[in-house]
Amino acid sequence: MTYCVADYLADRLAEVGVEHVFGVPGDYNLAMLDHVVGHERLQWVGCANELDAGYAADGYGRLRGMAALATAFGVGELSAINAVAGSFAEHVPVVHVVGAPSTDHQSAHRMVHHSLGDGVFTHFMTMHEGITCARAALTVDTARAEIDRVLVEVRDRHLPGYLLIPTDVSAAAVDPPSGTLPAPVDHTDPEALEGFVESARALLEKAGSVDRVGVLAGLLTHRVGGREVLRELLDAGPLPHATDVWSKSLVDESVDHFVGTYAGAASAEEVRTAVEDAAALIVAGVYFTDLTSGFFTQRITRSRTIELGARTASVGAATFAPIELPTALAALVPLVRDLAAQGGAMAPRPGAAPTLPAVDADEPLSQDVLWAEIAGFLQEGDLVLADQGTSFYGASTHRLPRGVDFLGQPLWASIGYTLPATLGACLAQPDSRGVLLIGDGAAQLTVAELGTIVREGLAPVIVVVDNDGYTVERAIHGPTEPYNDITRWDWTAAPAMFAPGGGATACRAGTVGELRAALRVAREDPTTTAIVQAVVPRDDVPQLLADLTKALGQANSSS
Amino acid sequence: MTYCVADYLADRLAEVGVEHVFGVPGDYNLAMLDHVVGHERLQWVGCANELDAGYAADGYGRLRGMAALATAFGVGELSAINAVAGSFAEHVPVVHVVGAPSTDHQSAHRMVHHSLGDGVFTHFMTMHEGITCARAALTVDTARAEIDRVLVEVRDRHLPGYLLIPTDVSAAAVDPPSGTLPAPVDHTDPEALEGFVESARALLEKAGSVDRVGVLAGLLTHRVGGREVLRELLDAGPLPHATDVWSKSLVDESVDHFVGTYAGAASAEEVRTAVEDAAALIVAGVYFTDLTSGFFTQRITRSRTIELGARTASVGAATFAPIELPTALAALVPLVRDLAAQGGAMAPRPGAAPTLPAVDADEPLSQDVLWAEIAGFLQEGDLVLADQGTSFYGASTHRLPRGVDFLGQPLWASIGYTLPATLGACLAQPDSRGVLLIGDGAAQLTVAELGTIVREGLAPVIVVVDNDGYTVERAIHGPTEPYNDITRWDWTAAPAMFAPGGGATACRAGTVGELRAALRVAREDPTTTAIVQAVVPRDDVPQLLADLTKALGQANSSS
Repeated sequence: MTYCVADYLADRLAEVGVEHVFGVPGDYNLAMLDHVVGHERLQWVGCANELDAGYAADGYGRLRGMAALATAFGVGELSAINAVAGSFAEHVPVVHVVGAPSTDHQSAHRMVHHSLGDGVFTHFMTMHEGITCARAALTVDTARAEIDRVLVEVRDRHLPGYLLIPTDVSAAAVDPPSGTLPAPVDHTDPEALEGFVESARALLEKAGSVDRVGVLAGLLTHRVGGREVLRELLDAGPLPHATDVWSKSLVDESVDHFVGTYAGAASAEEVRTAVEDAAALIVAGVYFTDLTSGFFTQRITRSRTIELGARTASVGAATFAPIELPTALAALVPLVRDLAAQGGAMAPRPGAAPTLPAVDADEPLSQDVLWAEIAGFLQEGDLVLADQGTSFYGASTHRLPRGVDFLGQPLWASIGYTLPATLGACLAQPDSRGVLLIGDGAAQLTVAELGTIVREGLAPVIVVVDNDGYTVERAIHGPTEPYNDITRWDWTAAPAMFAPGGGATACRAGTVGELRAALRVAREDPTTTAIVQAVVPRDDVPQLLADLTKALGQANSSS
Repeated sequence: MTYCVADYLADRLAEVGVEHVFGVPGDYNLAMLDHVVGHERLQWVGCANELDAGYAADGYGRLRGMAALATAFGVGELSAINAVAGSFAEHVPVVHVVGAPSTDHQSAHRMVHHSLGDGVFTHFMTMHEGITCARAALTVDTARAEIDRVLVEVRDRHLPGYLLIPTDVSAAAVDPPSGTLPAPVDHTDPEALEGFVESARALLEKAGSVDRVGVLAGLLTHRVGGREVLRELLDAGPLPHATDVWSKSLVDESVDHFVGTYAGAASAEEVRTAVEDAAALIVAGVYFTDLTSGFFTQRITRSRTIELGARTASVGAATFAPIELPTALAALVPLVRDLAAQGGAMAPRPGAAPTLPAVDADEPLSQDVLWAEIAGFLQEGDLVLADQGTSFYGASTHRLPRGVDFLGQPLWASIGYTLPATLGACLAQPDSRGVLLIGDGAAQLTVAELGTIVREGLAPVIVVVDNDGYTVERAIHGPTEPYNDITRWDWTAAPAMFAPGGGATACRAGTVGELRAALRVAREDPTTTAIVQAVVPRDDVPQLLADLTKALGQANSSS
């Protein structure tokens, strides 16, 4: 077979680290998929629908730093577009590859299926403008250069991109890549860096000792690859530190100098003071959103703060740029070491390992008990996905054991996201055990991927929080209104429906004892998807969420 | 409670004929939904996810001439946007009502959930530009006028529209409507109509007698409300006539002078000649798309043709405008009556009632046998929805009994559409029995609405064609490729999963006898949703679809 554009794309995807391509086939991408299926380093992961495929790709991209989603023109790409927008909002690199009608049909403005019938074939690429960092409609002449450009932008900007590939372009003969893609470039300006270091040193010295320096780390630190150097910085003190809920699991939460999760006024008191009252505070890659900042109640005093963005670094009111975030963090390490050498290291803090609450096995489940039990169940190597709502806010206030990854989506906040994201995340990190925490209302949005998860041989533990409706919405507005009711399903029937060939079990847990037994069985069998329908009271809400929803209800009703 | 913008919208929706509002709640639309739930003429129909809600609204809009879809900003509206695009492509009036963050938050460019985090709140309305005929972001000052403008445009142009309503605007006090909305206007120009009638009379007289005049009617005739006057025209001859597959059930297929479904070269020979060889042909509201025209093989001779668009009417090469389609049809009625009075009426045609094929009960199901059996099962009052793929092309070649409605989506062709559309269509037409024909691959995309269908007390017969994958795609390309496989589900477990409280049954049918028994039981119990998993060979394809997929495969592989 002649080497063609689809081969070139497949080779480049493999080069940037993609091993799994998520999607749904359609007649405009079928021939292209031959080159995915046939590629020695790519695997096709067909999903039940395109939105789910997009969520799966997002979950994969969060862990791998690159993901690919393949859909068909019009119907497929628009079904997935909410997932792509979510990837944009949450800084996840996903390249959306769309198979389109042939160049001939487009030029002739033909009224072909999956088009609007108006002979215009640019509508859907235009709809991707606000939610992708790079786009290209490939032609035979531009295909190689445009594939390279879009993939490099997606990789380096950690945002989604879009490639539209007509059937004939996909099949057109081209040369293979003549070299590798350019490596990411550090755009840091040495002079800016020098100025930043000088100012930062002064601020840190003014703080006087490392126990008076705090760190608040956020999402961008993860996205730009700053996790390792952040750890180095935190250990150099050691520095008391927190993350926001969006970046939960960015740091090892089992160490003594981790103080907890910061959420503005909704933080635990010791976390709030550790952040807000630090003599010097390093804020690394943090965005303050309504739901991650206790509804904008963060109190960060600029004059005491070193703030790092993706390519900017500020000390007090002075901003230095361009400085890449990991480079800025690395520059702070020796400054903190110097300060630590002057003494004043943190006093050892009370041990923070999660302990099982002392509750009877017969006690009915409540939100508080459920999340405490889940926290006690987690162990190193688990990969937790918590859906926006009671699951995310219930689980996120508990300290994670070392080596647990935690994924959520608190800005885009598209309920149902985590179920397909579990598919992607578990494929991205096959040695981890997936633990999906999701409400019954949310799981109804994306239930169809249960079958795909089992088919792919993954075996997550899936806790479906059965509280009979959209509880988070009841807390915001209309607690007894019919729009917050959902249709009642029986999740224990899911294995029979979605995995008739085996590979999944399900049970209902209404008491602490039943939950513990279900989790124990799930832990003992790492090869079977275990669905636990955990029944909790309808209007029970975790405290953090109660605070947030009260603020939200007020925000929505203010004029 | 003070009368507010949400009340005004609800009143206007009821005025234009909406009785059911489909959607998914989110915190930005919760308070608005109070005014839907509380309205005496509106019912809220909460769906499992937004794409499904959009499909349900589309099914409702096709039968009612107006539908409403309510979603939340960002996540909700983008999840539904493929359905809205489908409504645009297929000329279905649906108003998409989106609850947005408050005006305050928007003005302050706050980084709130369900936004991209960039402080820009116009992205998603912009994404609706290509797929709606009217849009408005409501403010307190403009709300009443803009609601009226958008609803009138949606009603009169038979296309979707978009309303963005911030939480505070929704709750703002306004006056109730001071009068009813303006009635639709007939834009026909009398002089143009006179010229058209004169030319049409000449062409019809040249044909000589009514049996030499053919009619081909299409989608737009239905959408612009031309169904009754079309019937009058057809009976005035009587005139031999056909529809295309897109407009199936536009006419009564049980009458003698209905010749069948026209699809260009893929038509039955007697249909093809009745259309292409007519001495005079009236083409009313027909779009020729790839999948409805046998891949553009229609042969319509312009010089012998009277062609009616939504607001244009042509006779041969001469076009007259503006003339509304129903007005043009009405003007043709007396011309045809005059011609009929000259004699030459059609000879009676052989009876065309569907007959059950003479096959043994033990015979395994095949596509041919399945669709023949379904055709024999249908009866007056049934409402058939056939999903794009083997279901649509298998079912559409059979003649329908009088009084059966038939919905499909051959231009937008979004698989899975018909399952939620059944929810909407059955609510729109509660005295009809729904009959959903859908492939196993397609049904996986939208399975979640099974529960909603049962919850709403609807009881369609649902035939899931189990052929182990995307058979229509296998026919186009890659018959044995893994991307055309789907995860195997057991549809007989669906009632336990989605309707644990009862209201649904399911069985598997592998033979003609099993199918007949299942359909008989379903017919006898009009209060229970009956799922029939009909097992057919994997690569079996109805003949019409085989012809089309061959052409498609060639089109996609041509350079």
